Amino acid sequence: MSSEMTIQQFQDLIRDRYFSTDSARGVSKTFLWLTEEFGELSHALGEFERGNADLENLAEEFADVLAWLVTIANITGIDLTDAIIKKYVIDGGPKGTK
Amino acid sequence: MSSEMTIQQFQDLIRDRYFSTDSARGVSKTFLWLTEEFGELSHALGEFERGNADLENLAEEFADVLAWLVTIANITGIDLTDAIIKKYVIDGGPKGTK
Repeated sequence: MSSEMTIQQFQDLIRDRYFSTDSARGVSKTFLWLTEEFGELSHALGEFERGNADLENLAEEFADVLAWLVTIANITGIDLTDAIIKKYVIDGGPKGTK
Repeated sequence: MSSEMTIQQFQDLIRDRYFSTDSARGVSKTFLWLTEEFGELSHALGEFERGNADLENLAEEFADVLAWLVTIANITGIDLTDAIIKKYVIDGGPKGTK
């Protein structure tokens, strides 16, 4: 695993390591976990906006939100690479703004 | 770009295509945009939980949240691949649960 990590590899890593506990927890409770991390990211972004950025913490909060987002994709059977390619790559993606 | 798309490639794609408008919009307003997409994802997950899953729409909402998350990472200068590797790959990541 390196800087060349694919979205698929990260989704597989989270599935291999945590799927049994994640699927037992289920969508609703895992969404609460994701939202908790989303709140932590918002706090880190607030600190950034107030000029008190802790970039190491900010990076970690981004990683956590991504990990929990990937977790729910795993539970619901969504392939994130396919989803991104369909929305943002085929036909050049949304024009002007997302 | 294919199913082998790396996290870095997606971050670069979003940067190349949208950075000028994204950076002008700034962190706070872009976070509002992200949160709007987060709400749309939560609605799609609610439909999934109620047995009314629209998997195509659900996949699109995951893609949109990812795209806006990547957007804010771009604005704040965070490398998502580095962030993920530091948190989830080095030393095997968090144990037991994330």
